[in-house]
Amino acid sequence: MTLTGELFIGAERVPAATGSMKAFSPATGELIEPEFAFGGPAEVDRALRLADDAYDSYSHTGLAERAAFLDLIADKLEAVKDELATRTSLETGLPAAQFEGEVVRTAAVFRKFATVVRQGRFLQTAIDPAQPDRLPTPRMDHRLQKVALGPVAIFGASNFPISYSVAGGDTASALAAGCPVVVKAHNAHPGASEIQGRVIQEAVAEAGLHPGVFSLVRGPGNEIGEALVDHPLVRAVTFTGSEAGGMALYRRAQRRPDLIPVFTEMTSVNPTFVLPGALAARGAEIGTALVQRGMYNVGQACLKPAILLAVDGPGYAELRDAAAAEVKKWDARPMLTPGIHDTYARSVQRHQDHGATTLGHGAAPAGDTDGQALLLEVTGEQLLAEPTLREEVFGPTLLLVKLTSEKELLEAARAFRGQLSATLHADAADRTTTEQLLPILERRTGRIVFNAFSIPQEISYASTHGGPFPATSDSRFTSVGMGAIERFVRPVTYQNFPDELLPEPLRETNPLDLWRLVDGELTRR
Amino acid sequence: MTLTGELFIGAERVPAATGSMKAFSPATGELIEPEFAFGGPAEVDRALRLADDAYDSYSHTGLAERAAFLDLIADKLEAVKDELATRTSLETGLPAAQFEGEVVRTAAVFRKFATVVRQGRFLQTAIDPAQPDRLPTPRMDHRLQKVALGPVAIFGASNFPISYSVAGGDTASALAAGCPVVVKAHNAHPGASEIQGRVIQEAVAEAGLHPGVFSLVRGPGNEIGEALVDHPLVRAVTFTGSEAGGMALYRRAQRRPDLIPVFTEMTSVNPTFVLPGALAARGAEIGTALVQRGMYNVGQACLKPAILLAVDGPGYAELRDAAAAEVKKWDARPMLTPGIHDTYARSVQRHQDHGATTLGHGAAPAGDTDGQALLLEVTGEQLLAEPTLREEVFGPTLLLVKLTSEKELLEAARAFRGQLSATLHADAADRTTTEQLLPILERRTGRIVFNAFSIPQEISYASTHGGPFPATSDSRFTSVGMGAIERFVRPVTYQNFPDELLPEPLRETNPLDLWRLVDGELTRR
Repeated sequence: MTLTGELFIGAERVPAATGSMKAFSPATGELIEPEFAFGGPAEVDRALRLADDAYDSYSHTGLAERAAFLDLIADKLEAVKDELATRTSLETGLPAAQFEGEVVRTAAVFRKFATVVRQGRFLQTAIDPAQPDRLPTPRMDHRLQKVALGPVAIFGASNFPISYSVAGGDTASALAAGCPVVVKAHNAHPGASEIQGRVIQEAVAEAGLHPGVFSLVRGPGNEIGEALVDHPLVRAVTFTGSEAGGMALYRRAQRRPDLIPVFTEMTSVNPTFVLPGALAARGAEIGTALVQRGMYNVGQACLKPAILLAVDGPGYAELRDAAAAEVKKWDARPMLTPGIHDTYARSVQRHQDHGATTLGHGAAPAGDTDGQALLLEVTGEQLLAEPTLREEVFGPTLLLVKLTSEKELLEAARAFRGQLSATLHADAADRTTTEQLLPILERRTGRIVFNAFSIPQEISYASTHGGPFPATSDSRFTSVGMGAIERFVRPVTYQNFPDELLPEPLRETNPLDLWRLVDGELTRR
Repeated sequence: MTLTGELFIGAERVPAATGSMKAFSPATGELIEPEFAFGGPAEVDRALRLADDAYDSYSHTGLAERAAFLDLIADKLEAVKDELATRTSLETGLPAAQFEGEVVRTAAVFRKFATVVRQGRFLQTAIDPAQPDRLPTPRMDHRLQKVALGPVAIFGASNFPISYSVAGGDTASALAAGCPVVVKAHNAHPGASEIQGRVIQEAVAEAGLHPGVFSLVRGPGNEIGEALVDHPLVRAVTFTGSEAGGMALYRRAQRRPDLIPVFTEMTSVNPTFVLPGALAARGAEIGTALVQRGMYNVGQACLKPAILLAVDGPGYAELRDAAAAEVKKWDARPMLTPGIHDTYARSVQRHQDHGATTLGHGAAPAGDTDGQALLLEVTGEQLLAEPTLREEVFGPTLLLVKLTSEKELLEAARAFRGQLSATLHADAADRTTTEQLLPILERRTGRIVFNAFSIPQEISYASTHGGPFPATSDSRFTSVGMGAIERFVRPVTYQNFPDELLPEPLRETNPLDLWRLVDGELTRR
């Protein structure tokens, strides 16, 4: 398809209202055609009025119809796989092959949410039948289902321009819930955003849905994002990005006269703990794997195993040496944006200023925005004394922490703030420390990985991509996996309703063949 | 039991640190013995350190053990029924018989949550088994369960001194989730609070649990509440009360360096819509019932049907006259506190200043804090023009809204902010308007009641006591009913774990016989 750079307000393609931009190629440092339109508060307002107008019909689509719409988006994503991967590669400096895989996985996510919609368990239907003879007072019939919150504003991430962007998991799960969506395109990949937006816009039309189900806006600076967060018709906001960006958005939303859910997924160092038995048995293997996983996407991944902690002893030198040898193999590669590169350089310097020593590095940068692979080391004492050493460095740097004892390892584990994931490498001989460490990790993280690494992320029913602050703004939700839909629904109880006025999922005959909680027991009758 | 007025910090009974108070009898206007101790930030800190210390063991109690603890609290509540009801009556001016019923219902809530714990569905266990041969990449075993958030600070309501207070639904659901609890006693009923606190403190000891599972603090002014909300170890806050109070607490929590869930249940006028067919058929019956429900608890109920809307036509005069006749039968009765009485008087005056006319009233007040029953009326035009007429008057006042058309009725429905409940009285002849009205109500409320009233509240699986702002701070949750437990848990995924290190609910043999989501399908194997 030919990129036009327009905004998508419902079914309309809208030219620039407040300026425009070109995409940046991190690999060449050059700007890429075409011009991409900027909108402002007026475009946000139009998009949200349309979304609000679409809510009544879209939120009440039948489950089969909504699922078919999600499947259609999946088909259409796959149909533009090569084009989307090529453009995304151009806008990120990352290999097209990586994005071909990302398109396939993203299409799979839409299909999985189509299944979630067909299964209808996310409706959490519950029925407490009438008990007219109950004493001291009769019970009326009560039936509960979850309903969609309303229009959702979605801020895509810079680092995964497909799976966490316009057609990413936030959009898939919000659409699955029955919420119209307004996406703010990330300016780091406007062309990739347009291709994805076009796919969804076309799917809305082909499915015969209200055009307000999907809009895609773009703007300079923070103005358009603020207009989105401030808009009275927005019923929920999602964001994936930095802690500073997520908190600014969150704080902004708190100034609204009403309260709406704002889910921000922000920062995580995903600490990896290697216990003595595992260290002695396979220190070198773990060191190599750490760097291989850590360098994925030029270290620009929320699940990067940024910090590895181990007690100095048998295997530590082997782990360190293997990691140092591996990091030397990684060329400097272009980072996503010049801004991210600058922040990376500053973060590395900050770590070095706090005493982190360099164990090894990859080839020196060639281009201005190249990020050099780096392996640093600090002691447990340093890590415990200096909170910034426990913070994220977004880019291809990994930090080893050399501890003096298992006691210090447990103490270091307690020092971390909330995390998306934590990893534990342990053998049978490490059982005692394992049992001490697990509850510490459980309190601080949304996922614990045993003898493996947490990246790549599995997207399924048992997935959690969430965790206590600052990993996210609300640890009770996940932004990846089938549970992500729960962010966008709320319970409504229908009391004493005649059957014909009840929503279909709650009718007496269970016409959709759903699992329902009847009088406190799960049943399919 | 003899009331001592002490604070309960874990197993300890602690005398006053920063002053004391006596209870107030609204019926006599006199102060009642004994002195009740005030604590301050130091007592809050002790309570939360204990709670945090209790978390690891309490959140990992077996389901059977935790359920038995909740049942024990229920038994002990029933054992003090008469004493608790008598003291609560003394502190509220409301009849003891009402509180005997409330104790029975509150004990039942603990038993219901014991059942919820035994059923274990709140753990939302999901298992995606390993698929070592999957292409292009193998899948590791992923298992998810919900875990308790951590220590919860609970602010009881003034108006239901048992069911929304120390041993109320918030405490029951937080304890069921596995969260230690620190309750701030409401100063309107310190004796009732002490009796309930004693019951839970004793149950903790008898069950052999860590004493930090429960603490009860009390203080003057806002200082102790702020200390609770600010404390770094608090992991969630719940509040039931006014919009001003709830929002002050919510805003305070937003100043924390970390984000924690704050669930506030605040304000609702529970609009009742009477459509023409129902109005003509049974206007008088509805008018009488409206007042009877509305006067419950001297109108001091979050589910009071505060505003009734109907189109002027056949049946309207009958409804109005029946309501006016009924309201005359209601004596002025003492309100919960002098402050609530003053706010009530001001709110009534505000409505009258905005043109509400008086259709009828009960006997004039005898005591200083008596609230006079009042029936007001405005036109639809007035209601639409003046937002404050759509706001809550906390006390025994009801407002009729006389509309000119069904179109105006729908417009008025759209003008309301978020509500806990809405009620629709309609006959078969009202089908068209019913179908137009239902989606409007669904967007604005957590519960829709058909041809009945929303009070009393049923406490079961299909209950929702929640709704869009300002009914609550987060419409995705309920504070009443079995779903209330969801406020206090978050998902954790255990990836690639050996079976013996998994939490019991996730083990391969399903030793607890739980319903689990295995590969996306519900099963009990």
